[in-house]
Amino acid sequence: MNILYDERVDGALPKVDKAALLAELQRALPDLEILHRGEDLKPYECDGLSAYRTTPMLVVLPERVEQVETLLKLCHQRGVPVVARGAGTGLSGGALPLEQGILLVMARFNKILEVDPAGRFARVQPGVRNLAISQAAAPHELYYAPDPSSQIACSIGGNVAENAGGVHCLKYGLTVHNLLKVEILTVEGERMTLGSDALDSPGFDLLALFTGSEGMLGIVTEVTVKLLPKPQVAKVLLAAFDSVEKAGRAVGDIIAAGIIPGGLEMMDNLSIRAAEDFIHAGYPVDAEAILLCELDGVEADVHDDCARVSEVLKLAGATEVRLAKDEAERVRFWAGRKNAFPAVGRISPDYYCMDGTIPRRELPGVLKGISDLSEQFGLRVANVFHAGDGNMHPLILFDANQPGELERAEELGGKILELCVEVGGSITGEHGVGREKINQMCAQFNSDELTLFHAVKAAFDPSGLLNPGKNIPTLHRCAEFGRMHIHNGQLPFPELERF
Amino acid sequence: MNILYDERVDGALPKVDKAALLAELQRALPDLEILHRGEDLKPYECDGLSAYRTTPMLVVLPERVEQVETLLKLCHQRGVPVVARGAGTGLSGGALPLEQGILLVMARFNKILEVDPAGRFARVQPGVRNLAISQAAAPHELYYAPDPSSQIACSIGGNVAENAGGVHCLKYGLTVHNLLKVEILTVEGERMTLGSDALDSPGFDLLALFTGSEGMLGIVTEVTVKLLPKPQVAKVLLAAFDSVEKAGRAVGDIIAAGIIPGGLEMMDNLSIRAAEDFIHAGYPVDAEAILLCELDGVEADVHDDCARVSEVLKLAGATEVRLAKDEAERVRFWAGRKNAFPAVGRISPDYYCMDGTIPRRELPGVLKGISDLSEQFGLRVANVFHAGDGNMHPLILFDANQPGELERAEELGGKILELCVEVGGSITGEHGVGREKINQMCAQFNSDELTLFHAVKAAFDPSGLLNPGKNIPTLHRCAEFGRMHIHNGQLPFPELERF
Repeated sequence: MNILYDERVDGALPKVDKAALLAELQRALPDLEILHRGEDLKPYECDGLSAYRTTPMLVVLPERVEQVETLLKLCHQRGVPVVARGAGTGLSGGALPLEQGILLVMARFNKILEVDPAGRFARVQPGVRNLAISQAAAPHELYYAPDPSSQIACSIGGNVAENAGGVHCLKYGLTVHNLLKVEILTVEGERMTLGSDALDSPGFDLLALFTGSEGMLGIVTEVTVKLLPKPQVAKVLLAAFDSVEKAGRAVGDIIAAGIIPGGLEMMDNLSIRAAEDFIHAGYPVDAEAILLCELDGVEADVHDDCARVSEVLKLAGATEVRLAKDEAERVRFWAGRKNAFPAVGRISPDYYCMDGTIPRRELPGVLKGISDLSEQFGLRVANVFHAGDGNMHPLILFDANQPGELERAEELGGKILELCVEVGGSITGEHGVGREKINQMCAQFNSDELTLFHAVKAAFDPSGLLNPGKNIPTLHRCAEFGRMHIHNGQLPFPELERF
Repeated sequence: MNILYDERVDGALPKVDKAALLAELQRALPDLEILHRGEDLKPYECDGLSAYRTTPMLVVLPERVEQVETLLKLCHQRGVPVVARGAGTGLSGGALPLEQGILLVMARFNKILEVDPAGRFARVQPGVRNLAISQAAAPHELYYAPDPSSQIACSIGGNVAENAGGVHCLKYGLTVHNLLKVEILTVEGERMTLGSDALDSPGFDLLALFTGSEGMLGIVTEVTVKLLPKPQVAKVLLAAFDSVEKAGRAVGDIIAAGIIPGGLEMMDNLSIRAAEDFIHAGYPVDAEAILLCELDGVEADVHDDCARVSEVLKLAGATEVRLAKDEAERVRFWAGRKNAFPAVGRISPDYYCMDGTIPRRELPGVLKGISDLSEQFGLRVANVFHAGDGNMHPLILFDANQPGELERAEELGGKILELCVEVGGSITGEHGVGREKINQMCAQFNSDELTLFHAVKAAFDPSGLLNPGKNIPTLHRCAEFGRMHIHNGQLPFPELERF
């Protein structure tokens, strides 16, 4: 993919004298690794959203909190913007660097500091990989619940920044629900603790505010996560449907029956075929849609729930309901789902992954709407997503080498997100806003709301040096973008009429 | 009780011309009920924390959002402070009125607007009582999980303001975990929606920030709460111990065994005797401590868990473990616990209810510490609390008619909270900071952290008109209070040394 990076942010930033800054940093932090040559900077041009690329001015790779502290103080004095980066697996360009800024790579903070089985928590550095926490907790029969698909690679610091979700977040919550506290450095290099070891913390809930703030409020230097006991048993049901709408309706039926599955995922025919070709998971390739429903807990409970869910699925019109007969089949069913994105990558030169969230009850209608839009734009859309929590991931298939297809894909993506907002949903589920969806934020929020976001940002970072140009659009950008939220029938920016 | 109200807040506020304001309000809002005479104002002098009392300048009782909107705009223009009040059951003086301010009573917003069983949510006005939501959801086999002891009376708007908990919040979370969105009015009378119908919402998590902000960031005008399916079965185990420390240790053992009870409560001998005398719950009056452990879920699961918890309790040294033999006994066991506060009220002329939270593993040590302090101060302390989540409620028994006892009780209370902070806990679990614990906030947070709180407050309410003098102390107050947090060995307010 080859979407040009919007230059406005960098363009608006004051020019920094790179050579002078480098020299100053080297003087102040002689043992800090700093990358400054073209070829060294190349790997840091983008994160998991490769469509957006910028060469960072400098990349720093600290190993100790004191280095980050000194660096931030220095950047703050000099007015140099700082973008933090964990493992770089983010999908919305949240860690996209700046030509006039420093990319602060936290990957070397990779130590697990403490696992406390009685207190049910782990204290880790921000560069620790998501899966490594569960691995460290495994000897105590505990695990860390949020499981983004990238969990083998993504870092917990990045998870905090993006409030990452995953297959199991319907039942076990997002990152924010699984944190006890974080240590941060403010833009001025001051250390601060948000949250506490206790269930609740007095004052404002700055931990929740910070979680998902996409590197705009501070730099995470330590994370204390909750650990949960591993469920005794996990079983997976696969249900096939002859229409996506029916599958969508079945999702609501399961929840309405009083069951909260460990995971509840949906794939449409295009994704089923792609995944089956790639992984041989044993999916029914003629089905218009399948649901994968994982039930976990104690043996007897899971047994009962499987029976109840099977019944609900049949009543909802499933043409086939299959219980994974053993652990090997269960793992295979999930392998198909977890590799669906790369599988789709095999059947199309390019694809564009969307991430909208809608109220569950709107699933059938929105799936129909996406299908209509897909026909209208002449582009295939594969749907594979966290159905249980209404977090959709339509994959728009296109060929960037065909003139106009990229633009059509982008326009179709925008329409799909607008559809999500229209039914009361939001433009992002778990991938964040980052650079990618900053314009869509203008549709999601009105000017009062955006102004409040900016005021909150300013409470932490008055000079706006942390990750500028991401997450929260300026009112000016929204006015230029021209897709403004109409609130109570009022133009959101009446002042613009004056010009 | 008779603790004098700290006059500093009102003293610092600009004088308001009551007659002129009343006339202006009556003109602008002819159908708004306004109380302004002494005897009418009397019932609003305090909330559930009757130790603090102030006569409000005016009390307004709106019935429509438009009235609140107009009122706020007018107060904002005139610089008149506004304190919001729900049912007035709060226990930290969060709704304590101001002599120079308006008390905005939201009690008449008492309509349940929507119960959606498929979407599993209820949309209600802020004055709706907590229990009324579960009652409205009951026909659908759903309920609203957070259950403060005052749930029969307290309002959901107040629950949002205080981030209320309850017996079941160990398993089902605090108010913040059970909300989808709130509609608010800002201090300037602007309508805003925080949160969304979807699982996550882009931008900063202002819903979580707002929840528990004690009326300082805005006025709640509508609340959308999550509803949960009612557990099929609930069973209660009662375990007796010959020491509070053993009971405290057993709490950690249950959690470490991988079980999360629906409720896990502890009472010491003083509370057991008081409750037994009052309610005749069938408690063992010779026990030094009892634990009440509720297990809920599907039949088979609960059956297994009861067996496992019984075993853990016996291993932990319980002298007796009893399963409530039927629903009547289960209800009786809980009635004793739920009436423990009034029961203690029967054995002492006065008592002072504390609300600290500590990491669960610290329970045995802190219980020992409280017992030592109790001896040292010569005042009895009854412990009855949410043990599972480390939320303690020591009740300090005293007689305000005995010279010096009140002061000793207050000092003892302060010591107990400091003990909580020392072991990594916090000065409030679920009752909030309000007016009562504002000085203790100086021990909990350092000046950088308090400054950040003030900056966040200013992002919502730059002129500081919403509930001034509660929740977040000024740095000046902390300096006067003299119990400042020492951070990294540094004096938190080095600037004070200059004077």
